[in-house]
Order: sequence, then C-alpha cells, then structure tokens
Amino acid sequence: MIYTNATKEELQAELTKLKTEYEKYKVLGLKLDMSRGKPCAEQMDLSEGLLTVVSKNAECISEEGLDVRNYGGLDGLIEMKRFFAGIMNVPTEMIFVGGVSSLRMMYDAYARNMMFGVGDGMEPWSKAPHKFLCPSPGYDRHFAISQSMGAELITVPMRKDGPDMDTVERLVKDDPAIKGIWCVPKYSNPTGITFSEETVRRLVSMETAAKDFRIFWDNAYGIHDLYEESDPLAEIFTLAREYGNEDRVYEFCSFAKITYSGGNVSAMAMSPRNRAYARKFLSKQFICNDKVNQLRHARFFGDFEGLKAHMRAHADILRPKFEAVLRTFEEQLTPCGIGSWSSPRGGYFISLDLPNGTAKHTYWLCADLGVVLTPAGATFPYGIDPNDSNLRIAPSFPSAEEMRSAAEVLCLCAKIAAIEKLLEK
Amino acid sequence: MIYTNATKEELQAELTKLKTEYEKYKVLGLKLDMSRGKPCAEQMDLSEGLLTVVSKNAECISEEGLDVRNYGGLDGLIEMKRFFAGIMNVPTEMIFVGGVSSLRMMYDAYARNMMFGVGDGMEPWSKAPHKFLCPSPGYDRHFAISQSMGAELITVPMRKDGPDMDTVERLVKDDPAIKGIWCVPKYSNPTGITFSEETVRRLVSMETAAKDFRIFWDNAYGIHDLYEESDPLAEIFTLAREYGNEDRVYEFCSFAKITYSGGNVSAMAMSPRNRAYARKFLSKQFICNDKVNQLRHARFFGDFEGLKAHMRAHADILRPKFEAVLRTFEEQLTPCGIGSWSSPRGGYFISLDLPNGTAKHTYWLCADLGVVLTPAGATFPYGIDPNDSNLRIAPSFPSAEEMRSAAEVLCLCAKIAAIEKLLEK
Repeated sequence: MIYTNATKEELQAELTKLKTEYEKYKVLGLKLDMSRGKPCAEQMDLSEGLLTVVSKNAECISEEGLDVRNYGGLDGLIEMKRFFAGIMNVPTEMIFVGGVSSLRMMYDAYARNMMFGVGDGMEPWSKAPHKFLCPSPGYDRHFAISQSMGAELITVPMRKDGPDMDTVERLVKDDPAIKGIWCVPKYSNPTGITFSEETVRRLVSMETAAKDFRIFWDNAYGIHDLYEESDPLAEIFTLAREYGNEDRVYEFCSFAKITYSGGNVSAMAMSPRNRAYARKFLSKQFICNDKVNQLRHARFFGDFEGLKAHMRAHADILRPKFEAVLRTFEEQLTPCGIGSWSSPRGGYFISLDLPNGTAKHTYWLCADLGVVLTPAGATFPYGIDPNDSNLRIAPSFPSAEEMRSAAEVLCLCAKIAAIEKLLEK
Repeated sequence: MIYTNATKEELQAELTKLKTEYEKYKVLGLKLDMSRGKPCAEQMDLSEGLLTVVSKNAECISEEGLDVRNYGGLDGLIEMKRFFAGIMNVPTEMIFVGGVSSLRMMYDAYARNMMFGVGDGMEPWSKAPHKFLCPSPGYDRHFAISQSMGAELITVPMRKDGPDMDTVERLVKDDPAIKGIWCVPKYSNPTGITFSEETVRRLVSMETAAKDFRIFWDNAYGIHDLYEESDPLAEIFTLAREYGNEDRVYEFCSFAKITYSGGNVSAMAMSPRNRAYARKFLSKQFICNDKVNQLRHARFFGDFEGLKAHMRAHADILRPKFEAVLRTFEEQLTPCGIGSWSSPRGGYFISLDLPNGTAKHTYWLCADLGVVLTPAGATFPYGIDPNDSNLRIAPSFPSAEEMRSAAEVLCLCAKIAAIEKLLEK
C-alpha cells in the first residue's frame, strides 16, 4: 500500500497494525546504537599485529635513521608519509603527519586562520565576522568547529555529485565574509556520494570574493570501499593547480577507520606555500607527533598493497551490514512509497530521507524502543533540518543481525510517523 | 690564577697556553651535542616493555570497560589519570589527559584564551595587545609560544627560589595587559632551582590588574630527581584555593622524559571551573587522544611505586653526566675565579653564568670545536641575554665520558673568552 494513495481508513487500519507491532518490540528491550560512525570490535581486531610490530629497542630506528622514541621529526616519518601520499594521491612533500585525530588537524588549521590568517600578511579570520559553507546533510563535527569559532553557518544543499555548485558559486562570488567550505568528497558523510570531477573543478576554479577562501577537504573515506570497484575521485590539487588555486585547498585523512579510532595517525596535505606557512606555527605548538605509532603503522602494512588488502578485510565485515539495512529499506519502505536513501559504495553512512516533518518523530519512536540513531537534524547546521526529513544511519558498530533488527525497527517507526503525519492533514 | 687579579702579562701568557690547547682539540674533530634536553638512547631503552605490554586484542579493555582502540574517552583513562594525579599531587578529577606533547597542551590552552578568553563572558586575549612574564633564564619554547601569539615578552629575573617576586608583584599589580607568567617550578629549565613555598604562595595570592591572569605551571620535572631526596615543591592548587584563586593556575606535565619523548602521554590539571570551560572547546577539537598508548603506560608501570623505580633507573644514567660536568667546572673554572653555576638535584639542565659579555663568544668557540650548546641568549625573551653571560648545558644526551670532554672544551673556551674580554679593557 502506497501511503499517499491510501484512504484515511486504510491508513488508520495500517497504523493500528503497526502500533501492535511496536508494542511487541517494546518488550524486547533492544539496545542498538546506530548513532556514530564507529568501527566495530571485529574491525579493530584486524589490527592486532599493530600492537607488537615494533617490539624491541633495536627496532625503533626509522628508515632515515631517526630514533623514533626520541624528539625530532616535526613533519612525520617518510615511511608514513608514503602511505598518506598513496591515499590522497599527492606527492609526499605535501604531507604533514599528525597525531591520533584528523579532526584536530582541521580544528587547528581553522584556528590558525582565525588567529594568524591564511598566509603572510593576510588578516586573521577573527578580525571580522565570517561565514562558512556547510553542504547538508553533512558532518556535524565539521559544522561544530565553524560554530565554535563564531562563524555563521550557511546551508548548501547536497546533490548526487556534491554540493549544489550553482548555489556555492553564487554565494562566494559576492560575499568576502564567506571564508570556506566543508567537504567530505568521497563516500560523503552522510549521503555516501562522491563528488564528480566537474564539482571538484568548479570548487577550485570558482571566483571567490574572499582572497583567503579555503576548502577543507576531509578525505576521510578515500580508501574505504565496500566493493572491488572504487568511486573515482578527481585529485583536487592537480585541478587546483590548473587554475593557480592550489593554496585554496587543505586535504585531510587518517587511519581512524583503518586501524584504531582511539590510536591512529592522521595527515594533512597542503600546497608548498601553505605548508611552509603552517610549519612556522606547528613548530611552536609541539616538537613532534607520536613517531613510534607512525613506525608501527608503516611496518604493520609494509606497503600500499598491504594496506589495500587490510581495507578489503574491513569491507568484508562492513558490506553485510550495509546490505542488511538497504535490503530492509527496500522490503519495508518501498512498498509503502516512503523514503529515499543512498546506496553508498563505501564510507560509513547511509542517508535516509523520509517524508517531510517525520524525521524527528521517527528518531524518538526508535529511541523509545532502544534503537539509537544520530539525532535528527544533526547533519544540518545548528542541528536544524529545515524539512525535518533526514536521518543518518551508521551501520558499522552493531552486528549484521543487529543491523537488520535495527533497520526493521527504524522502518516500522518511519511508517508510523509517516501515517500519523498524513492523518494530521 | 684568579683572572681578575692577574696582570696583563700573566693573562697574555695564559691565553697563549689555552690557545695551544684549543688547537689540539681542533684536530680531534669532536661532535658533541649538549644543546637540547633530549634523553639518551639508554634512557629510552628502559621502556622497552612499553612496546609490548598491550599485545593482544583482548587486552585492549580499560579498567572502566572501554575498548581503548575505539572512539570515546575525551578526558583519558582513569588508570592514566591516577599516575598524573600522583605526579602533580592533585585529585584525578582535575586531570585532562593529552597526547604526545605537553607543549601542545600549553599552546592550545594559550590559543583558547586568545580566541575565546579564559572563561565564559571573558574577553579573548587577542582583543587587545597583551604581555607575558618570562622569568629568565627560562625555557625558550615557552617564550616562543607567547611571541607567536603576539605578546610582548617581559623579562623577570630568576632567583634561587623562583622568579623575583618583588618584580612580578609590582608589574602585575598595575598592568591589566599582563595576562600570565611561564613557570617551570621544579628543577627549573635551565637554572635547576625549585620554587620556594613562599614564591608559590606569592604567585597565587598576589593582586593582578588582569582579572584573566593565568599561571602556566609547567611541572615538567616533577619526579625527575637525580638523588634520593627530592626538592620539595608546594602544591600550587592547594595554596591557590586558600586565596580563592584556583582558576589562576594551569598545571602541565608529561611522560616525555619518563618513557618516549616521541611517543608519550601528557596531562593538564585545572580547577573544576577551568576544566568544564576547556572541555567545551576540547570536545570540538577531537574525539579522544591515544587511549591505546595511555593503557600501555598505565600497564607498564603498574602503580606509582613502579613509576618511581623507573625514575631511579633514569637517575642512575643521568647522575654521572651531571656530576662529570659539575666536577669539570669545579676543577677548571673555580681556580680561575670565573663562572658560577647551578648544582641541580634533578631536571635536565645546568645553568652556567660566565663573566658578562662572554657567553656568545664562548658558544662560538665551542661550536668551532664541534661542541654544540644551546645558543647563547636562547634562554631569554627574544633570544637576547642582556648581560651576554648565561649558557644552558644539557648533559643528558651524550655519554658521561663525552660530557666530561664537552665540559672540558666548554671550560677552555670560557677561559679564552674571559681573558680576551679582560684584555680588551
């Protein structure tokens, strides 16, 4: 029964049936968390060898002869840079290796711009009110950084090939207060799409009123494919160089979803000019990052092929979970004509669009059954989804079986919310 | 021969003798680095067990049941907090556990104050020109942070019991632009002294024109004793509470000179109000620090007694190096009546005061023989020692035998510089 074609009586009958089912779930006392893009223990277990790969004093010397246990090596080890260069498809010279969190590298890059400006002689962003473009649905922690820095967050709709570029171009052309844009270009959080080459090209070639406009290119899922074939992503620096806009881009990535979310290595890729400028401040902030952990990572994977094999093992764990959710949506929602969702070929999220005005209600119905979703609205600036329609599903943490149950609960709740909304009219 | 009592002829003869000796050293082609407070490989070797103490998937669960490999635990693990609480002598509730670098925690705390102010409703430090007190000789990297944030650095003389408190009190009483002071309260870098209880009390009780004045209390050498008996240091928060000034203090420490300088754990202790405020920003900056490494550290030491035993092993390595330098100074400089130096009972440095106007010359004479010291002046704001008299000696990295040679070279060069200065007159 397609809900929007059904009579009031038919809907009422369906609702009664669904509510009986809902009560049954209540008794089960479920406890399922689909709220955060958190790898599961089985995924972590894949990296057990990381714990002991560097196990003796004599093994602590890097390829370039550095005792990794001691001070030095601000930029990171060359053997680690090579992996990041492979992931981001840039030369090692562009890489600055960080610590456990790429989010921190983004925060710090943003903070540097706030305090010191994007380059020599540039005004600090903090000198005047600034705005930031937030393609939505997007990553809540990105938006939170801008918000905590006092930016006005500007929502830009996300399309199948990236942010709506007509809107982006129109906004940045005339407003010098817009200082940048947040992007997760591959297997986007949460919509799962990958930016088209045209989108990338437009981002790096567009005219910006702000001379100090920056693209925060969070390539968090660059090698996080679920299937053999990877979504192609254009290498942004190469395109940017064509337009002389290489300095516009900061690229980030990490091993948070490769080895340990709570003990990994991150990196930032920058143009030579940006890198030299950032280094001046970074050298004041710390002497070096954790080189022992860098060496562990480099030795554990050996080479890029080793890393790719490791990612296939991740995919084998994650794929069934994604497919369980998608199959359930197909079975449960399609017949009712509600919802549309992404079928991502990588990353950590499925984005579900429900009838307008029903996402929050669905979220709370789920919560009451013990199924925790990312709060409705969280993927939008200020946590407000103007249509109240989007939910972010993170299928990685629960088991495939649990994901199936959780998705069933979600569909049940979405149907109840949809009918109640229709009956309101 | 006491140089200042000698005749010009006597000095000239001595200089000729010393220069012959100098030429002999030249041929040796020495390569000795006493420039940075860098632990030696033998010290790093003490922590070999750290590499494998957490070696299996099943061992990755913290005392409170957290999978340390995964996200979560912004503040750090309780088992790690306990060690820091022991080092800083504060309750675990005051601790925020950081990553590999306490310098970064200081930089970030400073940056937060620049961007957001020290507390709710307080003006960001960046809103107006600010000044910072730099007890000197002091730690160059501290001063560099203030300088990079645009502060005017104000030199305050260091005494045997801490910064000259008459000067400090006089300055902060009337000038609201003075926002804080850098302190290494125990085995101070580089003078090796420990602040007296009276100094600590005056720091936390003094009247400051700036309501947002902060003490950056870098307790880097809190348990880094060279001898059984430790210099007593008053616990600053307890004293600060007596005067209602607990919020004035940020305390820092780390395992950089306990386990691996390039792979350790740091921490910051704060008043409850400061901690709650900082947490708001820290939670935007990252999800967690490296909890795997925290667990490694906690398990490797087991308990505080284990940590203390480890520090005694460090002392056994370091003590002969310090003593080699001090003995050489005593043998070589005392008979000439030049120089005065600290005899620290812990920490990483010996501070040497030479006749005014001879430190730089001595530094370059040493450099020409292949003996690298911390650049003369580096321990003062802007790298300028007004008397050109102070040198910082870092005896940890070379072997005791090398330290003896290096100290002999240093004494030789100091004597040459002293005589040449006297002959100028």
